[in-house]
Amino acid sequence: MKKRNTMRIGLIGFGKTGKAVASVILQNEDFELRWILRRKKLLDHRSAADVLGIEVKNSDEGLIYSTSNTNLEDLMDTCPVDAIIDFSSGEGIYTYGESAAKRKIKIISAISHYKPKEIAFFKSLSQQTTVFWSPNITLGVNYLMISAKYLKKIAPWVDIEIVEEHFKGKEGTSGTALKIAEVLDMDKTQINSIRAGGIVGRHEIIFGFPYQTVRLIHESISREAFGNGVLFVAENLKEKGVGFYNFEDLLLPYFAD
Amino acid sequence: MKKRNTMRIGLIGFGKTGKAVASVILQNEDFELRWILRRKKLLDHRSAADVLGIEVKNSDEGLIYSTSNTNLEDLMDTCPVDAIIDFSSGEGIYTYGESAAKRKIKIISAISHYKPKEIAFFKSLSQQTTVFWSPNITLGVNYLMISAKYLKKIAPWVDIEIVEEHFKGKEGTSGTALKIAEVLDMDKTQINSIRAGGIVGRHEIIFGFPYQTVRLIHESISREAFGNGVLFVAENLKEKGVGFYNFEDLLLPYFAD
Amino acid sequence: MKKRNTMRIGLIGFGKTGKAVASVILQNEDFELRWILRRKKLLDHRSAADVLGIEVKNSDEGLIYSTSNTNLEDLMDTCPVDAIIDFSSGEGIYTYGESAAKRKIKIISAISHYKPKEIAFFKSLSQQTTVFWSPNITLGVNYLMISAKYLKKIAPWVDIEIVEEHFKGKEGTSGTALKIAEVLDMDKTQINSIRAGGIVGRHEIIFGFPYQTVRLIHESISREAFGNGVLFVAENLKEKGVGFYNFEDLLLPYFAD
Amino acid sequence: MKKRNTMRIGLIGFGKTGKAVASVILQNEDFELRWILRRKKLLDHRSAADVLGIEVKNSDEGLIYSTSNTNLEDLMDTCPVDAIIDFSSGEGIYTYGESAAKRKIKIISAISHYKPKEIAFFKSLSQQTTVFWSPNITLGVNYLMISAKYLKKIAPWVDIEIVEEHFKGKEGTSGTALKIAEVLDMDKTQINSIRAGGIVGRHEIIFGFPYQTVRLIHESISREAFGNGVLFVAENLKEKGVGFYNFEDLLLPYFAD
Repeated sequence: MKKRNTMRIGLIGFGKTGKAVASVILQNEDFELRWILRRKKLLDHRSAADVLGIEVKNSDEGLIYSTSNTNLEDLMDTCPVDAIIDFSSGEGIYTYGESAAKRKIKIISAISHYKPKEIAFFKSLSQQTTVFWSPNITLGVNYLMISAKYLKKIAPWVDIEIVEEHFKGKEGTSGTALKIAEVLDMDKTQINSIRAGGIVGRHEIIFGFPYQTVRLIHESISREAFGNGVLFVAENLKEKGVGFYNFEDLLLPYFAD
Repeated sequence: MKKRNTMRIGLIGFGKTGKAVASVILQNEDFELRWILRRKKLLDHRSAADVLGIEVKNSDEGLIYSTSNTNLEDLMDTCPVDAIIDFSSGEGIYTYGESAAKRKIKIISAISHYKPKEIAFFKSLSQQTTVFWSPNITLGVNYLMISAKYLKKIAPWVDIEIVEEHFKGKEGTSGTALKIAEVLDMDKTQINSIRAGGIVGRHEIIFGFPYQTVRLIHESISREAFGNGVLFVAENLKEKGVGFYNFEDLLLPYFAD
Repeated sequence: MKKRNTMRIGLIGFGKTGKAVASVILQNEDFELRWILRRKKLLDHRSAADVLGIEVKNSDEGLIYSTSNTNLEDLMDTCPVDAIIDFSSGEGIYTYGESAAKRKIKIISAISHYKPKEIAFFKSLSQQTTVFWSPNITLGVNYLMISAKYLKKIAPWVDIEIVEEHFKGKEGTSGTALKIAEVLDMDKTQINSIRAGGIVGRHEIIFGFPYQTVRLIHESISREAFGNGVLFVAENLKEKGVGFYNFEDLLLPYFAD
Repeated sequence: MKKRNTMRIGLIGFGKTGKAVASVILQNEDFELRWILRRKKLLDHRSAADVLGIEVKNSDEGLIYSTSNTNLEDLMDTCPVDAIIDFSSGEGIYTYGESAAKRKIKIISAISHYKPKEIAFFKSLSQQTTVFWSPNITLGVNYLMISAKYLKKIAPWVDIEIVEEHFKGKEGTSGTALKIAEVLDMDKTQINSIRAGGIVGRHEIIFGFPYQTVRLIHESISREAFGNGVLFVAENLKEKGVGFYNFEDLLLPYFAD
């Protein structure tokens, strides 16, 4: 039986970030993690709570299924969910997309990059159900981007610089920094990338005025930040109808007084 | 003859901040500093541009008048202005308030503290002309306060802390920090005040989420920041009618999409 | 047989920090984690590498022993170590202190607080072997304290302020901040404590000069920082003889040109 | 007659920085600004205190002389000084170098760049008197460089990044950042340069460790910082004999315990 007011979740993907997200969902009373679908056979039919060392009331909650061993249509019928959260890979949506859409299950995707083909598929699904996609699903970064956009609107002539800091091994410019640059109409070559030690992730937008400086900074502490972002999205999608949404769609109503 | 499109300004007060503001106005082609009124007799009838060492086309522009030697009504008639900017003191408005209001001259006040009596007087003037008051008239700080308010609205449960840094001698908590605390419904005792060396002024609002941190920072470089704030206000008051406005009233339209 | 040049380690304590430290030691080729001693019976005789999910060549390395089931003298004889690292509790030293000292095993303690009695015991042990104690065994914080001390020596009149930031639940002023204040001869009430969200740990020392500001900042990313600190200490104690050392003793030679 | 214990100063150069330095010297009781030599004829024979609006006991102190109108040998004889401070240009030393050296007047130069020929000349002068040269004569930046060098010595494998921030118009990489890179054996292309608004000057050295980050930051508030640096140098050169010194020579004794 469904718990009162809780939102039932199916999670796609159980890599490092998937695990962190599962851990946050399991510890939040307003959400119920019903099952996890992953490509690997490892941990098949084990409880996510058990694997992650989290104590939950109902240890049957959140069993892990392997794609190859599982009939997803059956799973969705015997163990129904209100929303599917996708932390798998670019092709993940083909596994669950149509089955979810025809059941009106909301789809929340946090995949970093999609090819045009996948985006088109997503848009077609959004004619049947509520579909959401954000390449960086943390509350802080998305807030920062909107806030920065407003400051640029207020002072279009202000000098803007972006500094992003990440651990030594990270290759290429951070996707989040590229997104910030895009939102602010900046050239992508202007981003300053710092690579040092084990920095988890830090983004700073510097607004240089003639006699004052404004700095908007986001610091990631751990991957679990994605979990909290997901829950914020799920909560704010509850009342949304059929359509294709991004993070800005959910945040803008808060900015309109 | 009035220059095309320029806004004609009368400045009340010529202390350290008044001078910095005058200097910014004199260097901006969209504004014309017509006269300055101050209490002291020092520098009477000298040109502000000359005193401040700024080269201007018309050195007759921006003469300094002492309150005691000047008939303000005459000055307003022979040398009319579109807006009066007040950087004097709490009682300054009694000098110019009624004369300005009946001539529909816009009033822009940057006085830090007013007593209830002065606020009441201000409100009565706002029935005849456009009246604006902001105790901290910099663009950055006012943007920060609104932005912070939105983040709290998005995540009402987030932990918030304020850190303000100023030069060693500054007494008491900074008025700007107190205002930020008020806007965010925080207890004023929660503000952390740093006093060290010659720090001009730095305000940081820290939003602590479970797995990420957002920091909004404003750094003052010099008093001239008030000048730029004043020009932003003057520009954005141009189309505003009779009424009593604050900085938030001018910024909110930029946030509404 | 002992590996060439590696240092053999016995670890006391296997709580959250003990685990992080074990994980760092296991991944460093210059050190060999021979055994772990803990109070709890949980995980008895299991391999630390296995428990922590770390791949090592020799999975017999680093077995976990429970104090109550283990004859420590026997363990030290059959499985000898060069150094003991203590992340247990204030009373931990009574378990291993004398047995280690008489075997000339180096003792490295990272316990936050000791009572005078334990410090006295430590000092007596230091007449037989090399003993080291640091309440905050990270390289960064200890470097910061020495560096700060030198800046105060260079400019004794400079204004100094300390800001420490930690997660919401942390009670009391951070021990590290108190230590910094002590080293800089500052009043402990001057420390500014920020408590917000999930901040792991951040210490900032602000030096306010009349026309410039110097900031020394240490940010903790995770507990594993203690592991790296321990390895630095172990490495730098190799050539040290009998005596009682702290972190400053190991760092100062680097500052002397 | 010379005041007790005060150091008598002759200043070469009276541009923006020269003025700021003069202003700091005039306000410090341990130093006496005897004269200023500049290339321009402007302000000839006026008092620096008067020009800068600073109240001093003896308004004859600190007269401004133009190079072309002045016999410097005569000036040095009738108005002797203990040290000459040079904020003029690369060729300034030819004006005063030999006259100062033969009178054993200490020479303190803060010129940013010298050509090899000038450096050679400086070195020859240092056989007769005490000669000091620092291209960035602030206490904070020089402290930062030495401190950073020690941290690299302690942890040679640490990742280091430099970020420098300056006002929009500043061309090229900051000389101070280049110097920091040189001191830390880093490639000059690794420096991240931010150009925005009116930022006076900010240098940050980031040390990335696997699980912690150390940041050393210097923020300039105004040019007067050079004045305080000069006074520190003059004070610390008092007891130094003939020879060629740099800032590191003066700071290192503070680091040696």
